Amino acid sequence: MGTVIRGGTVVTAADIQQADVLIEGEVVTAIAETIPTDGHQVIDAGGCYVIPGGIDPHTHLDMPFGGTVTADDFRTGTIAAAHGGTTTVIDFALHKKGDTLANAIGTWHGKAEGKAAIDYAFHVMVGDMNEQVMNEIPHIVEDEGVTSFKVFMAYKNNLQVDDETLFRTLRLAAANGALVQVHAENGDVVDVLVRDALAKGHVEPKYHALTRPPEAEGEATERAIRLAEIAQAPLYVVHVTCEQAAEAIGDARKRGLPVFGETCPQYLVCDYSDYERPGFEGAKYVMSPPLRDKSHQTVLWNKLKSGELLAFGSDQCSFNFKGQKELGRNDFSKIPNGAPTIEDRMAILYHHGVNAGRISLNRFVALTSTNNAKLFGLFPRKGTVAVGSDADIVIWDPNAERVISASNHHMNVDNNIFEGMAVRGQPRTVLLRGSVIVDRGQFLGEPGRGRFQRCGKVTATAI
Amino acid sequence: MGTVIRGGTVVTAADIQQADVLIEGEVVTAIAETIPTDGHQVIDAGGCYVIPGGIDPHTHLDMPFGGTVTADDFRTGTIAAAHGGTTTVIDFALHKKGDTLANAIGTWHGKAEGKAAIDYAFHVMVGDMNEQVMNEIPHIVEDEGVTSFKVFMAYKNNLQVDDETLFRTLRLAAANGALVQVHAENGDVVDVLVRDALAKGHVEPKYHALTRPPEAEGEATERAIRLAEIAQAPLYVVHVTCEQAAEAIGDARKRGLPVFGETCPQYLVCDYSDYERPGFEGAKYVMSPPLRDKSHQTVLWNKLKSGELLAFGSDQCSFNFKGQKELGRNDFSKIPNGAPTIEDRMAILYHHGVNAGRISLNRFVALTSTNNAKLFGLFPRKGTVAVGSDADIVIWDPNAERVISASNHHMNVDNNIFEGMAVRGQPRTVLLRGSVIVDRGQFLGEPGRGRFQRCGKVTATAI
Amino acid sequence: MGTVIRGGTVVTAADIQQADVLIEGEVVTAIAETIPTDGHQVIDAGGCYVIPGGIDPHTHLDMPFGGTVTADDFRTGTIAAAHGGTTTVIDFALHKKGDTLANAIGTWHGKAEGKAAIDYAFHVMVGDMNEQVMNEIPHIVEDEGVTSFKVFMAYKNNLQVDDETLFRTLRLAAANGALVQVHAENGDVVDVLVRDALAKGHVEPKYHALTRPPEAEGEATERAIRLAEIAQAPLYVVHVTCEQAAEAIGDARKRGLPVFGETCPQYLVCDYSDYERPGFEGAKYVMSPPLRDKSHQTVLWNKLKSGELLAFGSDQCSFNFKGQKELGRNDFSKIPNGAPTIEDRMAILYHHGVNAGRISLNRFVALTSTNNAKLFGLFPRKGTVAVGSDADIVIWDPNAERVISASNHHMNVDNNIFEGMAVRGQPRTVLLRGSVIVDRGQFLGEPGRGRFQRCGKVTATAI
Amino acid sequence: MGTVIRGGTVVTAADIQQADVLIEGEVVTAIAETIPTDGHQVIDAGGCYVIPGGIDPHTHLDMPFGGTVTADDFRTGTIAAAHGGTTTVIDFALHKKGDTLANAIGTWHGKAEGKAAIDYAFHVMVGDMNEQVMNEIPHIVEDEGVTSFKVFMAYKNNLQVDDETLFRTLRLAAANGALVQVHAENGDVVDVLVRDALAKGHVEPKYHALTRPPEAEGEATERAIRLAEIAQAPLYVVHVTCEQAAEAIGDARKRGLPVFGETCPQYLVCDYSDYERPGFEGAKYVMSPPLRDKSHQTVLWNKLKSGELLAFGSDQCSFNFKGQKELGRNDFSKIPNGAPTIEDRMAILYHHGVNAGRISLNRFVALTSTNNAKLFGLFPRKGTVAVGSDADIVIWDPNAERVISASNHHMNVDNNIFEGMAVRGQPRTVLLRGSVIVDRGQFLGEPGRGRFQRCGKVTATAI
Repeated sequence: MGTVIRGGTVVTAADIQQADVLIEGEVVTAIAETIPTDGHQVIDAGGCYVIPGGIDPHTHLDMPFGGTVTADDFRTGTIAAAHGGTTTVIDFALHKKGDTLANAIGTWHGKAEGKAAIDYAFHVMVGDMNEQVMNEIPHIVEDEGVTSFKVFMAYKNNLQVDDETLFRTLRLAAANGALVQVHAENGDVVDVLVRDALAKGHVEPKYHALTRPPEAEGEATERAIRLAEIAQAPLYVVHVTCEQAAEAIGDARKRGLPVFGETCPQYLVCDYSDYERPGFEGAKYVMSPPLRDKSHQTVLWNKLKSGELLAFGSDQCSFNFKGQKELGRNDFSKIPNGAPTIEDRMAILYHHGVNAGRISLNRFVALTSTNNAKLFGLFPRKGTVAVGSDADIVIWDPNAERVISASNHHMNVDNNIFEGMAVRGQPRTVLLRGSVIVDRGQFLGEPGRGRFQRCGKVTATAI
Repeated sequence: MGTVIRGGTVVTAADIQQADVLIEGEVVTAIAETIPTDGHQVIDAGGCYVIPGGIDPHTHLDMPFGGTVTADDFRTGTIAAAHGGTTTVIDFALHKKGDTLANAIGTWHGKAEGKAAIDYAFHVMVGDMNEQVMNEIPHIVEDEGVTSFKVFMAYKNNLQVDDETLFRTLRLAAANGALVQVHAENGDVVDVLVRDALAKGHVEPKYHALTRPPEAEGEATERAIRLAEIAQAPLYVVHVTCEQAAEAIGDARKRGLPVFGETCPQYLVCDYSDYERPGFEGAKYVMSPPLRDKSHQTVLWNKLKSGELLAFGSDQCSFNFKGQKELGRNDFSKIPNGAPTIEDRMAILYHHGVNAGRISLNRFVALTSTNNAKLFGLFPRKGTVAVGSDADIVIWDPNAERVISASNHHMNVDNNIFEGMAVRGQPRTVLLRGSVIVDRGQFLGEPGRGRFQRCGKVTATAI
Repeated sequence: MGTVIRGGTVVTAADIQQADVLIEGEVVTAIAETIPTDGHQVIDAGGCYVIPGGIDPHTHLDMPFGGTVTADDFRTGTIAAAHGGTTTVIDFALHKKGDTLANAIGTWHGKAEGKAAIDYAFHVMVGDMNEQVMNEIPHIVEDEGVTSFKVFMAYKNNLQVDDETLFRTLRLAAANGALVQVHAENGDVVDVLVRDALAKGHVEPKYHALTRPPEAEGEATERAIRLAEIAQAPLYVVHVTCEQAAEAIGDARKRGLPVFGETCPQYLVCDYSDYERPGFEGAKYVMSPPLRDKSHQTVLWNKLKSGELLAFGSDQCSFNFKGQKELGRNDFSKIPNGAPTIEDRMAILYHHGVNAGRISLNRFVALTSTNNAKLFGLFPRKGTVAVGSDADIVIWDPNAERVISASNHHMNVDNNIFEGMAVRGQPRTVLLRGSVIVDRGQFLGEPGRGRFQRCGKVTATAI
Repeated sequence: MGTVIRGGTVVTAADIQQADVLIEGEVVTAIAETIPTDGHQVIDAGGCYVIPGGIDPHTHLDMPFGGTVTADDFRTGTIAAAHGGTTTVIDFALHKKGDTLANAIGTWHGKAEGKAAIDYAFHVMVGDMNEQVMNEIPHIVEDEGVTSFKVFMAYKNNLQVDDETLFRTLRLAAANGALVQVHAENGDVVDVLVRDALAKGHVEPKYHALTRPPEAEGEATERAIRLAEIAQAPLYVVHVTCEQAAEAIGDARKRGLPVFGETCPQYLVCDYSDYERPGFEGAKYVMSPPLRDKSHQTVLWNKLKSGELLAFGSDQCSFNFKGQKELGRNDFSKIPNGAPTIEDRMAILYHHGVNAGRISLNRFVALTSTNNAKLFGLFPRKGTVAVGSDADIVIWDPNAERVISASNHHMNVDNNIFEGMAVRGQPRTVLLRGSVIVDRGQFLGEPGRGRFQRCGKVTATAI
């Protein structure tokens, strides 16, 4: 017996259909004008949109960072994600110096298995891109189902790679159907500015932003693009925050290059002034790259409209204010970087994008789900409501309202950077591979039900 | 009894599904893993793509031009279109000075009815945008199902409008949910250059191109964009041919403006050197704007990749070499402008785009059908394979080959500017609202079966 | 007997010399380490810069406008100019419909002769660029010593030319060594917006600005550039006020085109908020194009730094508040356009440019004098302190201060848009062709001493 | 007794004067209509331009490179320079790892003293920018008269600096009135490409170019600009060769940044095809960055026209074909980099620039002399013909012709990359501080007469 989602408006990245959806087993088997009940379970979707479950291409669950570990692990993080309408996360497996990529992935399997309430895939965040690690890449792509590799142009003396490494990684990736992701900030510049600021006793949270100027992000983005251009490789730029970087991506796309940019909800609705909140409140907003002046928000929205920015991730990386953010009370550089955003990623884009008339419903679906699936080789198994695709489905109620707050969110963390923001548009029911995991705010799933998803190879014309 | 399209790969602008498609009456009623035969007619689509019928947003059928009339009327033109996989044309109803828009549309209904073998909608090509005509626009949009209005920045002393008219039309359109289309060439400049060339005895076909420089197209495109920006109106630029215009559109989109550019197959595969063919052969390639130097082709492809150019029309406007093109033997300015392109629009984009690895299958569908439907308010009735949508479907055989030639094409014209070009990828079967109208090269439809399609209002976030 | 300017620092557009300057007759005959007194008159320039007299390339003296006439004529205007350090104005001879250019120039000679206290040359501001007028241009260039012709892209139904006229004028000018100047605003758009505003009862001064958006200036500038590009003609854009126009000029120059942009002091230090001054005060600031938002000032300064804007004029066009500006009390479109700026053009650029560290001394000289001379064929007779050049010299005291005010200025007008602005840097002594005409604030010249200066032909590599 | 240069046309970066020039001692003491003979030596300059002696801001004389040393030392190199009209070189003192800057400068003084036939100044080419070296910079600027410091973004594992070093150097320089010069190519990318090419047996000269793509130069240029922008420092980019880099500089200048670009004669008239000359001839053209496709030449000329490129150096670095270039017969990476260009730098710019109508005479002087003096703090002692300036003067005969050839040049090297090129415009007489050192092709100077010139501090508004 299957499940029929009845009477909704099925919205994909391109289409809008008034149709019933039949789920048998874990996949959608039919989309039709009317699907007879035939003993199937029926879920009413009247007045709602039936959209693909969100795919969050950028999360950090259970991740060690600067002597502490993110507040949300695969259990709490994925439950919160589910509440927000996300049914797959692509989490960053952290590779450490000296380790193999396979081990890093293995460790991450260990963290996710038995805990994840939704499906998950992995990127590897490469901690040390040396010869041996490069040699491992073809095998990882072919055998491990991990096809995206993030390297850092920031975090000097730690994760930061030099240009040779970035360039060689790009060529290697292109040759093997993998995609290089870059954290694009010039780490050398940031490092100098941070040391200078601290030397001058500038320790408050706002100096986190002032020591990471947008030009440093613009520079690294331009550089990564040029290197990808020479390497004839596609490129994915994570968490684009500012005009300088977004324009560089747009210019590259104008030249026909397969350069893909991601932005995140926080950069659309928060800004530099948050760092100047009284007391140590600004610490909640410490993330890298930092929030920018408000003027950058307009640029980012324009790029979402024009299609220059194609991916939309949360960059979920939650830390408690108490005990974690506080580590940097006397030194902004010790504030753990990141914020809890996995739960409201979709609602924020819906409210400020669709409701505000900035983007269409189809674009909303493309950004929250389809594009992310396509870019990382999960499509068409994931990322759409279509025959043969996994029945990861959200019944989205465009009229449901919520005031975002740490007091009612499902993340395991004591703060929310969107605290107090009212949004209209919420998931009513969320299905993972055919099973209801959230319904009207209640979690009905089960940690451990999430399943690892192998990513496929990536092509320049993915989108 | 319905029809089942079995075993194909359903491709939309976003999705790819291995699925059967059920057609009942004139619409798709189900897309499903397996649809039982149940007495339905079954069409095998094994090894083929099942895609939405093409929507050609730019045709000129049965159109008077310079004392003659295009060689193809709604009968021959739509039959040829059908052979190429196109199931809807949006033809330009020609409004003449002194006439009403309603009359122009009425005339065009007269031309299409009883003859069109595929569905059709209308833009109005406004011949004289005066006060009275402007007043008519709201009614045309509401009651006539025509929502796009083309004005000319070229053709001085004839169709050309001044900036006041263009600007007021843009504001009026924006206020009424209509879309302004511009033919963007600076007609004043062209007029001077043409008179000069003729005065110097420069009468050969190539002077058609030399008197319409790309800067004149770039200028008009930039101007239309700025006027639309001030008017806060969306804008559609027809037949973009050159770097200058395409970059202007891309720059506008980077600023977040709803500016939509269309290009055509001829600008992707033909070039200025065609005008220098021996004898009077160059006359076949005389169209406005003209073919450009080959370097512009790369720019146009890049813009199709990046999504800066979103629409793809044929600009079908066929004239016989004998008796028609020959009118300009001694004066290039008397050569009727246009070429027969309605039939091979899709094949050329498929072959040079998809086969060549430049664009994805989804992008091919978006460009040939979905985007065009969305921009002109035909979506989702047209432009996709989806439940509730008209069953305008092409079973596209990716391996079928054809050598394009006037000797085998179905257009009623004695020349083909793609003569001798081999393409791989052809429609095997074409359905119009559920009925097979072409199968394996045989026309099974009927002139007059095509039905008028009302266009809906247009929004800035249509795509 | 000559004159020796002793002990100053001679500054030209390129050089800085500690030197004496010898003037014999009307010209400089020597620049030397030490020039013996030899019975010459000696002027001490110790602690001062010895710079070429300013050349104001954009003035409107004794000009009829909208039923009134500018408050300053050639007598009062040139005396005020002299006080500010300007020794040559290039005034716009107003050509009226039906008249010949020669007559217009003749009329202007009549206005200037016997009145001008400094030298003067003419542009023609073409009121009706018809066939006959075009035919006159070669003769005007050759015989009348007028080589620059201003056409208007604004002022619909009045001065505005169509693109054919602009294009033909550009070609004609290029062929005859003349330079086309454009007032670049899209008059059609402005006209619609003005009528709309008035229809809505929006009559206050600020609507002057709101009906002339920067995009309309950007558009016209882009258009003029493209037309000049096709015509292979140099182009001079008068009074550039905004980012859109300035960037268009910069982009043209990046392509190697001989496009020259002029800005004016008011656009560097006044802004839109001046229109919102209480009462009818905003009327003083009504000029076309209007003042812009403050953000545009930074762009203009950057373009002066980079050399993208090369010319610097006052656009002097003075009207009394009482009796003239007041004509538009109930209708902003009736406010005479313009402001009194001829006197403080140089001081404002010096104070806000040189003192503020934005531009060098050499650049100051280039912008206020040399470039303007070169662009209009007055160089090297005018525009520099060099052997053989006219001894139009300003002894500029970098430490002299002045508070600009209508109460102390020398213009014949009851208001000053820079009222209350303190500037440091003033002419101490001004010489016209060797005669002192201003010394320490005292006018020692004589109306009628100014002499007409023939402009030479213009080349694309003038600067 | 002095010298009078009689009857010439004195041309500076801004002016043109028919004037005599009086030299007394080593400096110009008067420029005047007529200077009485008074027992002075008289040099006739009738029919000629009297221009400032060339300042070549980029030479490598007597420089060790890859196990060999440049063919020209300070004797032969400066004699050749003098023949071409150059009277000052700014040579790069090579700082080696472990050494002090002061020592490097000392070594270079040793190379120049007693040998240089013309004046000279030094940049330091920093071989190892470490903490100690940075600490030395303020002293070098203040006491050694060396104010420009070149760092390398290329030459991995050798001269290449990381971004931290570049950034800190920029800040330090800005704080001390010094100017950072960058060799802008991404050395990491080049290094990978070179190793790859060699591994594939690609050893011919053309692979030198193919392993140093223009995108690698564009990238490094963009990066240096962003770092300078953050550091609020001026920046000088040496030897700009390609569109990517030139556009980046132009864009920076459009933002108002003090970024200065230099190009060289070889990039204007030679191109990639020279590497494909038969045999090993291509080796003569091996330099870094390499020659580019011909299309880049147009871009560079446009930038010289527009003022986006402001400096013009030879990058003289001569190696004999026999015995030196041949070191790389079996491995392009072993070909010594550089070419003999010091002698014809000015003639090539004159012939292809001024004669061809691309740039004005004033621009020619600015590029070959004045700008270079201003950028490096030698102005106004050097770089102009003005009172008080050194009497470094060239009497330039615009009609003298020469066919450039190794058979007649004065450089101590067996090849000339401009071999066979006919140019019109040559120095007739060259004076160094008042003494004739070249007359009608004869060297009349003396090695050792050249004197070290202290460079002054640099400001953002130098030009």
